[in-house]
Amino acid sequence: MVADAENGHAVEPGVVASEADLAAEIDLLGLIGCAELFAFETLARDAALATTLEAKVALGAIACREYEHFAMVSGRLIEIGVDPEDVLGVYVPILTDFHRKAAPRDLLEGLMEAYVGHGISADFGREISRYVDPGTREFVDQLLTDDDRSQYIVSHIRKSLRDDPGAAGRLALWGRRLMGEALAQAQRVAADRPDLARIVLGGSGGGESGAGLAEFTNILARLTAAHSERMQNLGLAP
Amino acid sequence: MVADAENGHAVEPGVVASEADLAAEIDLLGLIGCAELFAFETLARDAALATTLEAKVALGAIACREYEHFAMVSGRLIEIGVDPEDVLGVYVPILTDFHRKAAPRDLLEGLMEAYVGHGISADFGREISRYVDPGTREFVDQLLTDDDRSQYIVSHIRKSLRDDPGAAGRLALWGRRLMGEALAQAQRVAADRPDLARIVLGGSGGGESGAGLAEFTNILARLTAAHSERMQNLGLAP
Repeated sequence: MVADAENGHAVEPGVVASEADLAAEIDLLGLIGCAELFAFETLARDAALATTLEAKVALGAIACREYEHFAMVSGRLIEIGVDPEDVLGVYVPILTDFHRKAAPRDLLEGLMEAYVGHGISADFGREISRYVDPGTREFVDQLLTDDDRSQYIVSHIRKSLRDDPGAAGRLALWGRRLMGEALAQAQRVAADRPDLARIVLGGSGGGESGAGLAEFTNILARLTAAHSERMQNLGLAP
Repeated sequence: MVADAENGHAVEPGVVASEADLAAEIDLLGLIGCAELFAFETLARDAALATTLEAKVALGAIACREYEHFAMVSGRLIEIGVDPEDVLGVYVPILTDFHRKAAPRDLLEGLMEAYVGHGISADFGREISRYVDPGTREFVDQLLTDDDRSQYIVSHIRKSLRDDPGAAGRLALWGRRLMGEALAQAQRVAADRPDLARIVLGGSGGGESGAGLAEFTNILARLTAAHSERMQNLGLAP
């Protein structure tokens, strides 16, 4: 976490700096906005997969809240003075690819995707938000903290596992697959969005890459630990 | 349209009468609420099928408005003093069956289901609402009138047909199939919900069934005419 004086980029969390940081901040908002839109689609699909009215109603309400979050991100991008379409559009292929490669076979796998998959992308967003200005960081934190959603989904999955303990092995494997796909897509984001990668890694691949790599390793360790915690919350092997 | 004095049911539009009418009104609200919930699921699925951000955003917004409508119906049922779960739950198998039998193969067929399918169920709801009390009729009318939604979907389908005129034949057939499935499910609703059938048909199958049958034929004619108009709006053979 050293300041990249040559390019004028702040790489220390919480320090605001240049226009390149604004570009990274816009990229971050784009990524989070698109993740919220896809969380809406995922949860609405889960509502359709549900066979009880109670689950349909609960999942539908959570889905619509994700859509509201998406709209809030769009609004913030407009405030900054950029067109949400330009910013968000670039992530659509990445997230579409994720959903295609990790298509659930039933409601349980769908709920895992909503909880585990969206959990990973929220952690990823929060990690990056440590490197942008405090106002955006706070906005992102508030947006990504949504305990009600998690609580409903966790209790639904745990109940299903009590009724059918044999599903635990399949779901544990599914969780690992979701984590693998999420990391693959995160790498793709880093490759596609150099501004975003630079504020985290501290330099566009020059001499500072040692410090950046160490920090990146820490981020990966935290993402993995949070994922394991979520799997344990579900009563599944991480 | 004669008053069924023996059972105390009003069968003339706009005339409020007995507790059996309240049962029919609750059935109607249940049917409409469930149709709104399924419209949410249909439109959210269409948002996921869309490949442009613009369409995802527009369809997601319409989907969430349908969910709001569903919540409004739930609220009204609670006001009347009944549990929405009890009332709406009975329609879940009927609407699930409709969606299973009329599963779209692509976004265009999905949008047809949202416009044509939901259009038929809205017409059906409005027809029945003529037989319940004015307050509920007005509530139902306001809920089911949603020109913004239709306009976006119609213009999307028309644009797609301009780009690919060859799809018109397939979509015209699909529209006819949607109408057929909707009528089959309407018959099932009439069979499953006798209170609802009685206020429309004027009697539970006794001597008054002649007058009821004539009125039912008129309703069918109006539903068919409205369906043809929607197909023509899309530039498709009805």
